[in-house]
Amino acid sequence: MNPTLEIFSQGEEIVTGQTVDTNAAWLAQEAIHCGFTVTRHTAVGDKLTDLINLLNDIAARADCCICTGGLGPTSDDLTAEAVASAFNRPLEFDDIAFEQIKEFFDRRNRPMPEVNKKQALLPQTAKRIDNTWGTAPGFALQHQRCWFVFLPGVPSEMKGLFLEHVKPDLLTRFTLQPPHLVSLKTLGVGESAIQELIKDIKIPETIELGFRAGTDDVQTKLLFPFDYPKTDLDSLVAEFSQCLGDYVFAIDGLEEPTGDLAFEINKLMTATNHTLAIIETASHGLLAAKCVGYDWLIQASYDKNISQSNQVLSSSELLNTAKNLALNLQEKTDGSLVLVQLYTGKPEALKDKNLAIQVLTVLRVDKTFYESIHTILGPITRKQNQAALLSLDLLRRYLK
Amino acid sequence: MNPTLEIFSQGEEIVTGQTVDTNAAWLAQEAIHCGFTVTRHTAVGDKLTDLINLLNDIAARADCCICTGGLGPTSDDLTAEAVASAFNRPLEFDDIAFEQIKEFFDRRNRPMPEVNKKQALLPQTAKRIDNTWGTAPGFALQHQRCWFVFLPGVPSEMKGLFLEHVKPDLLTRFTLQPPHLVSLKTLGVGESAIQELIKDIKIPETIELGFRAGTDDVQTKLLFPFDYPKTDLDSLVAEFSQCLGDYVFAIDGLEEPTGDLAFEINKLMTATNHTLAIIETASHGLLAAKCVGYDWLIQASYDKNISQSNQVLSSSELLNTAKNLALNLQEKTDGSLVLVQLYTGKPEALKDKNLAIQVLTVLRVDKTFYESIHTILGPITRKQNQAALLSLDLLRRYLK
Repeated sequence: MNPTLEIFSQGEEIVTGQTVDTNAAWLAQEAIHCGFTVTRHTAVGDKLTDLINLLNDIAARADCCICTGGLGPTSDDLTAEAVASAFNRPLEFDDIAFEQIKEFFDRRNRPMPEVNKKQALLPQTAKRIDNTWGTAPGFALQHQRCWFVFLPGVPSEMKGLFLEHVKPDLLTRFTLQPPHLVSLKTLGVGESAIQELIKDIKIPETIELGFRAGTDDVQTKLLFPFDYPKTDLDSLVAEFSQCLGDYVFAIDGLEEPTGDLAFEINKLMTATNHTLAIIETASHGLLAAKCVGYDWLIQASYDKNISQSNQVLSSSELLNTAKNLALNLQEKTDGSLVLVQLYTGKPEALKDKNLAIQVLTVLRVDKTFYESIHTILGPITRKQNQAALLSLDLLRRYLK
Repeated sequence: MNPTLEIFSQGEEIVTGQTVDTNAAWLAQEAIHCGFTVTRHTAVGDKLTDLINLLNDIAARADCCICTGGLGPTSDDLTAEAVASAFNRPLEFDDIAFEQIKEFFDRRNRPMPEVNKKQALLPQTAKRIDNTWGTAPGFALQHQRCWFVFLPGVPSEMKGLFLEHVKPDLLTRFTLQPPHLVSLKTLGVGESAIQELIKDIKIPETIELGFRAGTDDVQTKLLFPFDYPKTDLDSLVAEFSQCLGDYVFAIDGLEEPTGDLAFEINKLMTATNHTLAIIETASHGLLAAKCVGYDWLIQASYDKNISQSNQVLSSSELLNTAKNLALNLQEKTDGSLVLVQLYTGKPEALKDKNLAIQVLTVLRVDKTFYESIHTILGPITRKQNQAALLSLDLLRRYLK
């Protein structure tokens, strides 16, 4: 039997629905991959008695609990106080936490507001979890049956603390038999099309098959039990990989760590020592934004005149325009690779979620052109994001 | 006192984190706008005893509960069974529900699968809620203190049933007094600094003050009771607005609908008929990306040489470089406004979350320069996002 784990989110913004609780889903997935059975999520607001009652219920019910939120400096941040009261562990001033909070402000050349002092108060005997992402340290403690971990609610801080401190600790603290998750990340193919492509694969009953359609990829997920033989795992993954073909841009859960599409392209670009210059239109800066931190992107531009003057061209005219722009850009820059994105559609097509745009991408490498064309529908931010991804994907397919 | 309401989501896909529970947030907002106080969200999986225990807890704790999920035809859909068992109301076959389910399949020229018959079983004395969106009827019943409403988990069906049947019923069943929410959206100031700024404001006890720090703004939220006088509301909001000063870029909940920073800038840009050309560095395309759909952005570029050659300059050298770039860009474009963003910092500062960068933004308008400088720390995507927002914010402050 796996140890059980509950997730507890504190904050009025969650309970009132102003914030969708994405932390809970993220933590649940992480916990399952560690080998826990997640039994319940609960969210409560800023009422001290609700918090106290819930903490006591969980202490009697679960082996582990991850709590997020309520560690901020303000008066509605009550988690530490609730823990102190529920578990009879008075708050104590933690000098090291205080120094860390002060340092956080020092590095930003800002005086520490008086209210932040409160964040250095931790329940007696709690283990401090250092936070280098923000001001609120996390903390952890055992009460009755349950090991409680308290983390800040800001997703980036929560994730940073969990991966860097909490997860390694949980893996030694509990006897866990983590299942093995393999995710095939694809782009340009939907969930139902994937189901068609893989329909002839025989999947053993002990393996859970799942799908997850995100904004940046569609993942086909295979959850293998702890003791599943490695060679059988590899051969099933290979079978999936073959059925999904070129749509797969990364396979997560094997030896090599993977990331998003730009991360995968970065591996290929640095290995081949290429540089890149781009002109983007429908993606409106987002293609460059996705490449932040990668030095091979040497130039990127958006120009309204280029973007809008092509909206009514035929496909062949559009292709010619793109090729000419690519040739010019190749001359002007040292970029060994040049990518030009153009789109057509009715004048309001980008903004109107019911109208489609056609996105043409031309990649120029030495004396050769490569091209792709995609139809994109949906709200403007979806069109923008898909245009950025699908243009980048032409680059990936060339580099492969 | 408002009646209290809890939200209860049933399903393994929620508890395991494969699905983010957007239903809960949507229902919470609807319930609050109706005049309920939402006290708790809970999600549990497919274990019958967990469901039964939770239903009994809620029956003793809340005035109303909206439950989603677990009404499907398969064996892991246990909600009706759990209700029957928890509240001692044996399942009874509902002829009308059965006719509706059969009709659903008839209209699609498909035979009704045998498993769907189960969906016509409702707990004794439950009030059926007709579902014209899918096969599962909802149902509602009183147990002890609590009015329970059970809806399918598919978001489109859930929302349809809630708006068409449940909400009108709740508004007559309960005595409700919907509150009024006002949010002041700020940029460039943290939650604790806000608390310092507003510390002298006397807030009547009936008003709830809250904060929400997101990636794109920090919101100061004031929840006014139903019968709070409009003039008092306006004068308190004005007081907050004055204390927070220029940091406020929008006030939500008054007459005018508001959006994110780019949305607010769009109002000002279209009112003044300006256009804009930009050079961005640390934001790496994201500044342009945030302006997607707004025609006043006529040109945007990122250039690695510009971005990296400034990393070691002194502040005065940096300012000169930025001004020269702005003058050149002003000459080359028809943009009435020109924005140049540069940054300094150690070579690895952008990528290293523990190192800071200084972001300088210069805005050129006619013959005048405006400038801002900000220190940004944190992971690369945070630096990128903050750089985009803070540069845009200089534009907003000028346009105001």
